[in-house]
Amino acid sequence: MHRSRLCAIGIDVPADQFDATAAFWAGALGRTPSREPADDPYIDLGRHDPPQVFVQLIGEPSRRLHLDIETDDLEAEVARLEQLGATKVTYIEAGWWILRDPAGNLFCVVPVIHDDFPGSATEWS
Amino acid sequence: MHRSRLCAIGIDVPADQFDATAAFWAGALGRTPSREPADDPYIDLGRHDPPQVFVQLIGEPSRRLHLDIETDDLEAEVARLEQLGATKVTYIEAGWWILRDPAGNLFCVVPVIHDDFPGSATEWS
Repeated sequence: MHRSRLCAIGIDVPADQFDATAAFWAGALGRTPSREPADDPYIDLGRHDPPQVFVQLIGEPSRRLHLDIETDDLEAEVARLEQLGATKVTYIEAGWWILRDPAGNLFCVVPVIHDDFPGSATEWS
Repeated sequence: MHRSRLCAIGIDVPADQFDATAAFWAGALGRTPSREPADDPYIDLGRHDPPQVFVQLIGEPSRRLHLDIETDDLEAEVARLEQLGATKVTYIEAGWWILRDPAGNLFCVVPVIHDDFPGSATEWS
């Protein structure tokens, strides 16, 4: 018998995007980045509420992973993320936004979808 | 004031890899895939223990997200995932494996790293 579980999500970037990407995601997720030792190739952004995992069919001959950020104020959250360096890609009529982080990774900002929101969500004012 | 949090991880694939990718990750994570309605572009694999998020510096001019699977028996877990269709990429001397899922996404299998293991880990026999 052995055991296993999903335990982490890595955001992998080259050296010239490392600090900017860590700063963006620390800001986006409301976490203090932690790096030890100072030349470690990892910057930790802590642990997070239980995420949903899903497989999505996309209309392109490519593949990727993406993160979703859940919020109770879509426009305010998208504006906050743009100030951190994200760029808008497209608004989906069903009610969410697709953006890119500074390194180019796509991610979504979605309205509240899980019953346990806000969980440990960060409050922004 | 508004609130936000990380809420989901999407594995995005084209149509010809949709079913195989969902079957692989359902098996890898020990979940029953759920798709409603039957032509939905999403297959849900449920919610998971609180994952760590980290930014990783890689020695390539590319970027991507990747998942980590945590286990108390590295070799048994890698063998189980290979039977599901994963392929080995490389063993990292620090003690973990890099693999690819059937769609080509890189992921890691790592020894126990979080104090709350096994949490809701799946038991395999």
